[in-house]
Amino acid sequence: MNEYVEKQFKYISLDEALEKIIHYSRLSPSVINIDVYRSLGYVLAEDVVSPISIPRDTVAHFDGYAVRSSDTLKASTVNPVRLKVVGRIDSIKEHNLSIREGETVYVVTGAKMPGGADALVPVERTRRYGESIEILEPVKRGEHVTFRGADIEAGESVQRRGDVIRPQTIKFLLDAGISRIKVYAKPRIAIIGVGDELTIRREEVDGKKLETSSTMIHYYVNEFGGIPTRVNPVPDNPNQIIQVVKNSLRQNDVCVTIGGVSLGPRDLCWTTLSKLPESIPIARGLRVQPGRATSIILLNGKPVIMLPGHIQSTISGAINILIPLLLYMQGLQSRDFFPKISAEMDEDLIVKEYSSFTRIRFVKLFKDGDRYRARAILGDSSMIRPLILSNGFIKIPEKVEKINRGSIVEVYLLSWLDVMHLFSNIR
Amino acid sequence: MNEYVEKQFKYISLDEALEKIIHYSRLSPSVINIDVYRSLGYVLAEDVVSPISIPRDTVAHFDGYAVRSSDTLKASTVNPVRLKVVGRIDSIKEHNLSIREGETVYVVTGAKMPGGADALVPVERTRRYGESIEILEPVKRGEHVTFRGADIEAGESVQRRGDVIRPQTIKFLLDAGISRIKVYAKPRIAIIGVGDELTIRREEVDGKKLETSSTMIHYYVNEFGGIPTRVNPVPDNPNQIIQVVKNSLRQNDVCVTIGGVSLGPRDLCWTTLSKLPESIPIARGLRVQPGRATSIILLNGKPVIMLPGHIQSTISGAINILIPLLLYMQGLQSRDFFPKISAEMDEDLIVKEYSSFTRIRFVKLFKDGDRYRARAILGDSSMIRPLILSNGFIKIPEKVEKINRGSIVEVYLLSWLDVMHLFSNIR
Repeated sequence: MNEYVEKQFKYISLDEALEKIIHYSRLSPSVINIDVYRSLGYVLAEDVVSPISIPRDTVAHFDGYAVRSSDTLKASTVNPVRLKVVGRIDSIKEHNLSIREGETVYVVTGAKMPGGADALVPVERTRRYGESIEILEPVKRGEHVTFRGADIEAGESVQRRGDVIRPQTIKFLLDAGISRIKVYAKPRIAIIGVGDELTIRREEVDGKKLETSSTMIHYYVNEFGGIPTRVNPVPDNPNQIIQVVKNSLRQNDVCVTIGGVSLGPRDLCWTTLSKLPESIPIARGLRVQPGRATSIILLNGKPVIMLPGHIQSTISGAINILIPLLLYMQGLQSRDFFPKISAEMDEDLIVKEYSSFTRIRFVKLFKDGDRYRARAILGDSSMIRPLILSNGFIKIPEKVEKINRGSIVEVYLLSWLDVMHLFSNIR
Repeated sequence: MNEYVEKQFKYISLDEALEKIIHYSRLSPSVINIDVYRSLGYVLAEDVVSPISIPRDTVAHFDGYAVRSSDTLKASTVNPVRLKVVGRIDSIKEHNLSIREGETVYVVTGAKMPGGADALVPVERTRRYGESIEILEPVKRGEHVTFRGADIEAGESVQRRGDVIRPQTIKFLLDAGISRIKVYAKPRIAIIGVGDELTIRREEVDGKKLETSSTMIHYYVNEFGGIPTRVNPVPDNPNQIIQVVKNSLRQNDVCVTIGGVSLGPRDLCWTTLSKLPESIPIARGLRVQPGRATSIILLNGKPVIMLPGHIQSTISGAINILIPLLLYMQGLQSRDFFPKISAEMDEDLIVKEYSSFTRIRFVKLFKDGDRYRARAILGDSSMIRPLILSNGFIKIPEKVEKINRGSIVEVYLLSWLDVMHLFSNIR
C-alpha cells in the first residue's frame, strides 16, 4: 500500500507543520485580563512586579515583646533584664507606637513592630511582673522579626511572562493586593467525531456506536489548558462536514475532526474541506506513525486539524500537533514539553516500518530498584490496548529501525493522570 | 528557643504520624459506584474485566472488498484477479452475509466482515467492472482485517484496582459498554484559616487581611483528588474554633486548620481541640522542618490536621501529611509519590538546623544541556519567595548537615502545574 499512499499524501515533518500553522494562521497568543481567583493554570502574559513590600512593615514573627536588642545584652537567668510594658499592638492595623530604652510593647504575630524596636522576644520566653516583663537571655538584632521587604521588595519582578500560574502564585498575587492579571487566553477547541456510524447515545441502537474518541481528546485539551467544546458527531456527508466545521469555527479558535481523513470513499474531511475556496492547505499527511494521515488546513485563518480515527493515530496527532499548538497559543514552549523519565528498554523493539518518519510507541514503565524499565505495548493503530496498558510513550527518531534491550530511552508522560498512575499506583 | 520548644512539642516522625492516623481513625478508602463519564481522575476500586471482545467481530480496517486470500494468490498487474461483488455492508449493523470462492463483498471500515472472508483489499487498490472488481496483487490472510478479540478479549482483566482513571480508560470503558464503575470516593477536606486578623474580603479594611493560605491549599487538595471545602476564617477564640471544626467534620472526612498551632497565647488550636473529651491526640509536632508545629488529633474518628500558619510550614505540612493521607484515602500509595527529577546541586547548601528532622527546601531547577541543576531558594518560614521562585523541593534526610555543590539530589515536583511550569516554560 505504501507506494499508492505516497502518491496521495504529501507528508511533511511535525516541525514544518507547526511552523506553517503558526506562520499562515491568524493565531497568536491572545491576552486577557482576569480575576486572580480564576487564574490557576493560566500562563502569565506579563511580568509581575510586586506593588508592595512584603512584609509591608517590619513585623513580629511570633506573639511577643518588641525590644531594643541593645537592652537585652546583659540578660541572664541570674540577672534578668526588666523592661516596662508601655503598650500593646493587638492587631495588624497601622499604628505609630514606638519604644525607648528600657521599654517594650506587646505585639501579635504579623503586626507592625513599634518604632525603636529591632527584635522580638516570644511571649512564652518572658515572665510578666505587673507593668513589666523579665527577659532571661539576650536577643540579637533582627531576631524573630521580619524586616520590611525582606520577603519581596516593592518593585521586584517576581513572576515572568510565560510562567504558569500555580497555587502559590495566586497566594502571592492576593497577598500583594493584585486582583486582576494579564494572561494568555485559553484556546477554544471544537472537537467533532466524523462517521455515519457514530452517535452520542449510550444505548447501542441500530448499528450505531457511541462516539468516544472526542471524549478522550476533550480531556487532554482540558489538561493542556484549552477549553474543549464537544460537537455532536457528523455523518460522512460533504455538506454536513463543511457546515459543522464552519459553524464550530465561529465560536472556537481551532477545529479538530476525528476520522474520515484517510483515502477511502467515505474519507471526506480532507477532500471536501481542502477544496473550499477559502481553504489554505497546510499538510496532507505528517511524517509521524501512527498518525500519518493527520491533515491540516486553515479556514479563514483558523486551523482545522483532521485527526485519523484509529485511536492510536488520533492520540498521536493530538500529541504531535494539537497539544503543541495549544501550548503555543498560551505563550508556552511547544517542543519537548511532556515530562519525561529515563528508562531501560526491557526487550528489543523492532520499528522497521515508516523508518523515514518519527514513530510513536506506547510503553509500560516498571520500577526496578531505583531505575525504570520500559516495555513496548504493541498493537495496530485501531487498538486501544497499547493506550490503556501503557503509562507513557517514546518517540523514535527517523532512521532508527531497532531499539536494543538495555538501551536507555526517554519515556514521556502524557498527563498529570499518567504521572499519578505511575507514581502513586499501589503496585 | 529550641530547649523550650522541645518541652512543649513531642515530635514524632512523618511515618509514625501517618500510621497512627490510619490505625486509630475510622478512615479507609470508601467505595462508590459512579458514571464512567464522571470518573476521570478517580482511582479504580475494582479490577476491570472486559465484558466483550474488542472488536466484537472480525472487522474491516479500511473501506474495501472482503476477500478469501486464497482467491488472490495469483493476482498481478498483468493478470488481475476478477471477483464478483455479491453484496455491500454499509454499516456496522449485525448481518449474516458470507462469500464463496470467486466472490467479494464491499465492507466499510469497522463493519463485520462477511463469513468466508479472511482479508480485505482497500477500495482504492481495486478497479470496478460492472458487477465485478479487479485485484492487482495478492493479499495475505488477515491483511487489513482485525480479528474478533485481537485488541481485547472478553473476560480479560485490563485495568486493576488502584489504577487512576485516565482519558483512555474512559474511552475503553465506554467502548466496552461499561457505564458505571466502582472507584474510591474522593475525600472531602474542610480547610479553615484561623486568626483574628483574617477576612474573606479583598478590600483591606480595618487592619484585617485577606485569608489566602486556604486558597492555596484548596488547589492542592483538588489536584490530589480531594474535594476541598473552604470555610470562612475563624478568630482566635476557643469556642468558635471548636464549633467551626466540629461543624466542618459533619460534612467532611478531614478538617485542616491553618494557623494558631504554635506556642503563643493566641495559638489555640491544639490547646482547645486536644483537650476535648472526644479528642484522640495523634501528634503534637512532627519531625519535619519547616512544618514542625503541625499537630494532629482525631475527633470522632476523623483527623483534624493543624497546619502552622507560616506559609512554608503550611505547605510542608500539606506535602508531608495531608497529601499522603488524601492518596491513602483513595487507595493509592502514600509514600514517595511526587514525580521527581535528578538534578545537580548548583551551590553548597548548609542545613544545620533541626538536623534530627527531615528538612524540606524549595529549589529552582535550571536546564543545563540534557541535565538539570538545582539551586535552593531560601527564606524563613513566613516567606513566600521560596515558593514562588522555585519549581520543586528536596527532602533532606535526618543527620545531613550539608549538601555539597555538585551532589545529585532528587527534586520533587509538587503538582501538574509545577510540571507545566518546568517543561513548557518559554525560558
